[in-house]
Amino acid sequence: MSKKQALDYLLNPSSIAIVGVSKDFTSISGKPLKNLLHHKFTGEIYPVNPKYDEIGGLTCYPSLLDIPGEVDVALIAVSSKRMMQILDQCKEKGVHHLVLFGSGFAEVGEEGAALQKEVLEKAKQSGIHILGPNCVGLLNVKKAIPMGFATSFETVAGFKSGPVGFASQSGAVGFSLFGMAQEENIGFSYVVNTGNQMDIHSIDCIEYMLEDVDTKVVAGYLEGIPDGELLIKLSSVSKENDKPVILLKSGRSELGQQAALSHTASLTGSDETFRAVAKQYGFIIVNDLDDMIDAMKIFSTGKRAKGNRVVTISNSGAAGIVMADYSEELGLEMVQLSERTAQKVKELIPSYGSALNPIDVTAQALKEQHILTETLELLIHDPDVDAIVFQTTFGGELGLKICEKIIEIDAKTTKPIIVTITGTEELTGEGRLALQNAGVPVYATSYKTMVALKHLVDFSLFSTRTKTEELGAYSNGNIGNPAGVWTEVKVKETLSKLGIRVPQGKVFANKEQLQQHKNELKYPVVCKVLSDEILHKTDAGGVKVNIKNGDELAAAYDGIMQAVTAYNPSARIEGVLAEEMIEGDAIELFVGIKDDPQFGSLIVCGLGGIFIEVLKDASIRKAPVNRLEAKEMLMELKGYPLLEGIRGSAKKDINKLIDTLVKVSEFAFHANGKIAEMDINPLWVFEDGYGVAALDGVIVWKEKDRVTQANR
Amino acid sequence: MSKKQALDYLLNPSSIAIVGVSKDFTSISGKPLKNLLHHKFTGEIYPVNPKYDEIGGLTCYPSLLDIPGEVDVALIAVSSKRMMQILDQCKEKGVHHLVLFGSGFAEVGEEGAALQKEVLEKAKQSGIHILGPNCVGLLNVKKAIPMGFATSFETVAGFKSGPVGFASQSGAVGFSLFGMAQEENIGFSYVVNTGNQMDIHSIDCIEYMLEDVDTKVVAGYLEGIPDGELLIKLSSVSKENDKPVILLKSGRSELGQQAALSHTASLTGSDETFRAVAKQYGFIIVNDLDDMIDAMKIFSTGKRAKGNRVVTISNSGAAGIVMADYSEELGLEMVQLSERTAQKVKELIPSYGSALNPIDVTAQALKEQHILTETLELLIHDPDVDAIVFQTTFGGELGLKICEKIIEIDAKTTKPIIVTITGTEELTGEGRLALQNAGVPVYATSYKTMVALKHLVDFSLFSTRTKTEELGAYSNGNIGNPAGVWTEVKVKETLSKLGIRVPQGKVFANKEQLQQHKNELKYPVVCKVLSDEILHKTDAGGVKVNIKNGDELAAAYDGIMQAVTAYNPSARIEGVLAEEMIEGDAIELFVGIKDDPQFGSLIVCGLGGIFIEVLKDASIRKAPVNRLEAKEMLMELKGYPLLEGIRGSAKKDINKLIDTLVKVSEFAFHANGKIAEMDINPLWVFEDGYGVAALDGVIVWKEKDRVTQANR
Repeated sequence: MSKKQALDYLLNPSSIAIVGVSKDFTSISGKPLKNLLHHKFTGEIYPVNPKYDEIGGLTCYPSLLDIPGEVDVALIAVSSKRMMQILDQCKEKGVHHLVLFGSGFAEVGEEGAALQKEVLEKAKQSGIHILGPNCVGLLNVKKAIPMGFATSFETVAGFKSGPVGFASQSGAVGFSLFGMAQEENIGFSYVVNTGNQMDIHSIDCIEYMLEDVDTKVVAGYLEGIPDGELLIKLSSVSKENDKPVILLKSGRSELGQQAALSHTASLTGSDETFRAVAKQYGFIIVNDLDDMIDAMKIFSTGKRAKGNRVVTISNSGAAGIVMADYSEELGLEMVQLSERTAQKVKELIPSYGSALNPIDVTAQALKEQHILTETLELLIHDPDVDAIVFQTTFGGELGLKICEKIIEIDAKTTKPIIVTITGTEELTGEGRLALQNAGVPVYATSYKTMVALKHLVDFSLFSTRTKTEELGAYSNGNIGNPAGVWTEVKVKETLSKLGIRVPQGKVFANKEQLQQHKNELKYPVVCKVLSDEILHKTDAGGVKVNIKNGDELAAAYDGIMQAVTAYNPSARIEGVLAEEMIEGDAIELFVGIKDDPQFGSLIVCGLGGIFIEVLKDASIRKAPVNRLEAKEMLMELKGYPLLEGIRGSAKKDINKLIDTLVKVSEFAFHANGKIAEMDINPLWVFEDGYGVAALDGVIVWKEKDRVTQANR
Repeated sequence: MSKKQALDYLLNPSSIAIVGVSKDFTSISGKPLKNLLHHKFTGEIYPVNPKYDEIGGLTCYPSLLDIPGEVDVALIAVSSKRMMQILDQCKEKGVHHLVLFGSGFAEVGEEGAALQKEVLEKAKQSGIHILGPNCVGLLNVKKAIPMGFATSFETVAGFKSGPVGFASQSGAVGFSLFGMAQEENIGFSYVVNTGNQMDIHSIDCIEYMLEDVDTKVVAGYLEGIPDGELLIKLSSVSKENDKPVILLKSGRSELGQQAALSHTASLTGSDETFRAVAKQYGFIIVNDLDDMIDAMKIFSTGKRAKGNRVVTISNSGAAGIVMADYSEELGLEMVQLSERTAQKVKELIPSYGSALNPIDVTAQALKEQHILTETLELLIHDPDVDAIVFQTTFGGELGLKICEKIIEIDAKTTKPIIVTITGTEELTGEGRLALQNAGVPVYATSYKTMVALKHLVDFSLFSTRTKTEELGAYSNGNIGNPAGVWTEVKVKETLSKLGIRVPQGKVFANKEQLQQHKNELKYPVVCKVLSDEILHKTDAGGVKVNIKNGDELAAAYDGIMQAVTAYNPSARIEGVLAEEMIEGDAIELFVGIKDDPQFGSLIVCGLGGIFIEVLKDASIRKAPVNRLEAKEMLMELKGYPLLEGIRGSAKKDINKLIDTLVKVSEFAFHANGKIAEMDINPLWVFEDGYGVAALDGVIVWKEKDRVTQANR
């Protein structure tokens, strides 16, 4: 059974056993039963504990094997030491879905990790799927089935069901966030805490929820990325099903990463890589719990923004200024209203208001509410406006009436209307609640509003973006099974096959060869030593430039041999490379491939010199990239203006550079994980129209093969 | 009477007249009376309106002049058109403190601006001080005297008085923020809305509150900076009185700035400059309303942090990871515990917890609360820990008990203890309230907690930092009354007097002089044309380098004259400068002075080349700066690693560079606002020990004086 199917059982059980149940309903092993009773679970509940005959009015069984009926899900609240025995019973009883609450596994060190491995193996053999261990449980919100001991299961208010599915590696963080979101009237479909995620992990849950009909918004709290490839695959499901995936990932700092290791034994990756790749694949990345709740709220509306053109309306000029500030900061466009719309707005509002965006309808709009409603009507019909933000500080009866008007208008349009009400709960609580109940997103500050809107715009644009799936130039290439290290000559051959310009050159294995063929070259040339034991050729005296003829080349050969032998007497020398000396007004970049443990081949590029050495300025994407993505990579670079040409310097061949990025990324993609590292450095980018040239390069293959290497 | 004294009257009136009062208590002119009655103002209230004999049980007077007693403050709710007449009455009655609610002044255009000016003039002549116009009023929280129509004055809960004084240019934003902060149990001394601030402005209010005994924390919401010099002066009051000033400034974006102009007719300055200068002078800058409330809360404790070394304690490993992430991001140090402390913590907590920072006391600490309290006790006595953050997701009875323990421990220490409770209001509300009532800052997310703590640390470090007030090298210099533009030769003379190295050189007014003295020079030299009509000397062919002897110099002279005459035939040529050719391994910087309308002379510096042209990377401070500030300026630069030396390149003479920044800034300071602009570019910084050299420079004085300039 797949993990997806297992999750379906886990979330929709007809019968639940609680193994190791306690009569103490305040304890971890007592709470799961208390919670099921509290929420009136309509299926069968089978408490299991040899110490009792009855708990909470239910028959208590000595062991799983004594239960008369079938058991869909077993909640296991026994010590880790008893796990192997319990697994045997599960197998015998035919229980295939377990939730392990207990700790004492991988999070406590080697012994625990060994036990965890043992448990997992046995479970696999027995066709059993496990959630946990070290987790607080899971929740089907729609059916009100709490399975576990999360504090938020004890709510007296009941659960609010709705479109958000949420998977959290951390139980404490996850269920607290869930509770806070519920208090803001955000409805959920499921919440799952994966804990040590020995079997079912957070990405599995995201996959399940992306395909679940009741879930329209998926959220994940991750400490590590248990399956980067699966996450990437889910990007297209997110897009096809038009369901955003909101991710909060902790363990970003170096110290945070250490803590993550000792906590749930997960490996957190580089935050930079995670953010770059997640953005590339349309995931919404949030920075903290507030941000997560705010994003859940705006996505719960199901509305999308056609673009980033925002109009803000307020009854206070100051608020308009603030919203303009945040829009600029976040990359939203405070769109200039068309003359037609501006004129009509002007006719509606008092003379001391502002008909320009930010629109100030003034406090008068509170009394004459048609001012606001008619302004809103104008904007929802204006095709140049993608989203409308209304901000007010008013509460009380008038404030509530305004909220009711907004709810009416919001129901008539697919255009997002987002409300900021800045004010006390005492004064504005009623209006806020009305909006929340009607599904109109409302925030307490303009900053929160604008950040949430930015998330909505990002996903809306992503979900309508066409990703070119076809692969280009190298798609028929067969790279075979390369191993070891490919140095300059071989890498240049490869690049040349990809259609990337490299200097034309010739390899001479010895002086005789050189003497024989030296006049076949087109001078001037550069001459370089070839040896995979001399990495810094220039330092070793292994490079001579501006060689004008055959005699100079012969002299250069001797000079190089003498220098490198002095530098490293034992180095194995394969010969020298004499190649075309390329000149021109160029900018130096590096383009590389890096193997990432979570996401596979990444393509990385950046400008040379201080940009990389001082500013550490580089762009990262998962390979392959299409032209649009390659362009975005370049535009992210701090040094991008140099490519565009500044202060009279000419524009560089960005077009050809984009081609190069695409080709290298496709090469890496087809290498299918075989590349450990690849580096083209420098890649010269000439003036627009003059292309690029790769002047040096190296590929390190994952497979080590000294023999092949020595023989190549 | 000073504006400070006027504010004292305005905030502490014994008698208040309400001119233009309305019987409609839901209207703007009715609410001020309703609010005074609602909060049971114990002084005299005099409603004024010829239409009524009585309002709300009080005698209503036809005009100010009919009031029997003295009037401390008059709240004016009449149309702007009647203002001049009201002023006459105020003068006659001896009313010296007015609050103008009405709009129709500078915010609506030229006519209104003219009226505002007229009103202000008459008020000044009559010894009258005005708050407003276009404001919603002010509030003395301690005495519960609301003067105006802010919605938050209508609270039924009453006001909570406390240490925070708050001035806001915007009424809507200001009083909403006040209301929200009160709901989080933050106590206030005063809240003042300054509106159009024709007379009393936000910085005046900050000044008043900094000197008020009841106010310990000052906050300001600013749209513009009405008096930059005063704000800077208040920095030392803030420090001496150990009262933080928290500022939220809107109008940061270009569009925001336009909106600010049409809103309250204020001029918002460059956000970059504001942030740099405010930081230099120890103001706490917040980014939105939430951030402001969070800062008010932590500063309300009155506690200070001795440094940035933080320890976090949590009952969840995940939360610790998150806090470590945020610490790193914000520049707080997750301090490594001493072996002694770590050992003791280890003995306290369960084996599966973490005794390393972030400390994980595990859920066990909920049941055995001594684990938490003893850990806290250890940390408050550890001199290497400056602040303690406790995070929990637990609520209910156990959660409340934990909060009570923390309150007990917090009361025993001056070390800040900050709490994060992530959870629903239903579950955690009680604990949260207990902490708030006890003055222990509590936040809903770790991010908010860490940001607030960073503000506390920043102010704590600022308030103990010794600012070198003495001025150095140029303090006896007398710069006289310079005017026009000083070009290269004169600027170099000036820099030389300041002790900044410049190339040794000689000016030749004509060929004859050159022939006569050419052998007095030490070769090689550089030769440059001198003309304030040729700005780009190199482009004009006006520079020759590497001149080795007198003959070459004579030839260079001819070449230059020919080239520049061709370039600009009418240019007035003052001669040529032949100067020492300085060489060495140097980095190019620029150092400049810029006159800022709000803060006076700013010193700006940055690296040349792509750092300024592509990255726009520059540091700004108000002049003068001391050595520490100059060092911080450099360390802020993205290119700073180049000065420290990277990849084997030598460290540069940072010490001498700091000297230079200090000297230039002091020069600007003594110039006392006379400099419009000054630019030293390039300033070469050599290897450590080899100093700096200014290779070119210009000063533009504010006073234009073509005659002086032509004659210099």
